[in-house]
Amino acid sequence: MQEFHDIVLIGSGNVAGQLAYALEKAGKKIVQVYSRTETSARQLAGSLNTEYTIDLNQICQKADLYIISLTDTATGEISTRLDLVDKPVVHTSGSLSLDLLCGVSINHGVFYPLQTFSKNRKVNFREIPLCVEANSTVFLKMLRKLAGEMSERVLEVDSERRKMLHLAAVFACNFTNFMYYIAGKIVERNDFDFEVLRPLIEETAKKVMKDKPQKTQTGPAIRGDQEVMGLHMDRLMNEPELQEIYRLLSREIGKMKI
Amino acid sequence: MQEFHDIVLIGSGNVAGQLAYALEKAGKKIVQVYSRTETSARQLAGSLNTEYTIDLNQICQKADLYIISLTDTATGEISTRLDLVDKPVVHTSGSLSLDLLCGVSINHGVFYPLQTFSKNRKVNFREIPLCVEANSTVFLKMLRKLAGEMSERVLEVDSERRKMLHLAAVFACNFTNFMYYIAGKIVERNDFDFEVLRPLIEETAKKVMKDKPQKTQTGPAIRGDQEVMGLHMDRLMNEPELQEIYRLLSREIGKMKI
Repeated sequence: MQEFHDIVLIGSGNVAGQLAYALEKAGKKIVQVYSRTETSARQLAGSLNTEYTIDLNQICQKADLYIISLTDTATGEISTRLDLVDKPVVHTSGSLSLDLLCGVSINHGVFYPLQTFSKNRKVNFREIPLCVEANSTVFLKMLRKLAGEMSERVLEVDSERRKMLHLAAVFACNFTNFMYYIAGKIVERNDFDFEVLRPLIEETAKKVMKDKPQKTQTGPAIRGDQEVMGLHMDRLMNEPELQEIYRLLSREIGKMKI
Repeated sequence: MQEFHDIVLIGSGNVAGQLAYALEKAGKKIVQVYSRTETSARQLAGSLNTEYTIDLNQICQKADLYIISLTDTATGEISTRLDLVDKPVVHTSGSLSLDLLCGVSINHGVFYPLQTFSKNRKVNFREIPLCVEANSTVFLKMLRKLAGEMSERVLEVDSERRKMLHLAAVFACNFTNFMYYIAGKIVERNDFDFEVLRPLIEETAKKVMKDKPQKTQTGPAIRGDQEVMGLHMDRLMNEPELQEIYRLLSREIGKMKI
C-alpha cells in the first residue's frame, strides 16, 4: 500500500458526493466515479472534473484506495462482484460489518462519517466524527491519517460500536426530524406556517451544544404536569397515533433521571 | 389605559427573566418584581436594578401593565388573589386560557413567547414569535404594539390556537430533547462522549431552517429498510421501552407522505 492519493469512488449519492468534496479539499484526487445510474455518475464526475463509468469491469485498476459509498443493500450486492483483491477497499456504512468486504480485498476497512448529508447542503467536514476500522494495523494507520487530513475528530471504532453509533444517530437525527414533522403538521393544521417553529427548533438544538440533554429537558412531562398533559391528549383525540406517541414519550420522560 | 412603560413582573423564573431583559431592551422599565421566593425575587430585581416584593399586598399599584409569568398552577392560584381590577394584566402561558384572568382585571390578555428559555442563555427576542390575545380590541392593539417593539414576529392568536402551538412545541422541543437524551444514553453506554452527536444534532436542526421536515426525513424507517431496523431492534433487546419507542416511531415514519 502506498499513501492514498488517487481514489475511486463507487457510488454517487449524498454521502459519496460530500466525501468527494472533502477528499479533494484534503488534496486527494478522485480519479473515477462509478454509479449504476449514468446521470448521477456523470453529474458528480462533472463537478469533480473527473471520469466516470457505469460498468464495474471498467473500474480503474490504478487507484490507491476504493471507497464504496452506496446504500447498504447495494454495498452488499456490489461487494460480491468487485475484483479488487490487492487494492485497499472501504465502505462508508454505519450498519454494515467490516467483514462484509473480506471477500473483496485483502485490505478492507470502514470509513464512516457520523452525519446526515443532503444533496444541496455543504457541511463542514472538519467537525464531523469520522469512524475508521480496518482488518490490519497498517491499513488502519493509513485510514487514520487520511481521516485526520479531512476531520479533526477521528475515531477508531469497531463494527459493533459503529452499529450502536448508527442506532443513536437514528434517535438524534431521524426521530428528531420526525418530531419536527409532527409539530409542523399540528401548526399547519391550525393555519400557522412551519416557520413559527424554527426559532424553537434552533434553540432546542443549540442548548445541547453546551449542556447535556438531561439538563435541558423541559415541558409538562418532566414537570409531571398532569393537567397540561391531559389537555394535550384531548387535543389529539382524533389522532390515535399521535396520542400513542405523546403518551409513550411523556411516560418515558417521566422516568428520566435528571 | 396609557402606553405601557412601567411594568410589574409577577414571577422570577426563566421566562420572567428573559422577558424582563427584552422589555428593558425595548425601553420599558420593570418597576417591581414579585416572587414567592425571596432569593429569586431579589436576584432578578437586582440584575434589573429595581425593587422586589414577596407580599402580594405590596404590589405596586401605579404600573401601566402587570405581567404574570409563573407556572400554570401558580398562575391559577395567584390570579384568585390579585386585586388589579382596573389595571391591564397578562399571563405568559401557552396552555392557559385568556378567561383565567377575567376575575382579575377588566383588561386581561395573554403575552406568550414561543420559545424555550434557560436561566443562563440569553436568546434573541427579536426572532421569537410573540403571541398576543386580549379581551378588548383596544388592549389587543396596545399589546401588539408592545410585542412589536420586542420582536419582529407578532401573532394574534386566540386561546385555542395558542394551546395547539404549545402542543406542537412539546413535539418540537421537549420530545426532540428526549430523542437527544436517548441517543446520548446509547453512545455513552458504548464509551463515546455525548459530544460525538453534536454535529449531527446541529445539522439536523439546520436542515429544517430552510426545508420542511417532510423533505429532510432520512434513515432506515423512511427507506423501509427492514434489515437495518431489525438489527437496531436486536441491539435494543434489553431495553423494552426503547424498543417500543423505536418500533412506534419507525412505524409512523413509514406512513409519512413525502
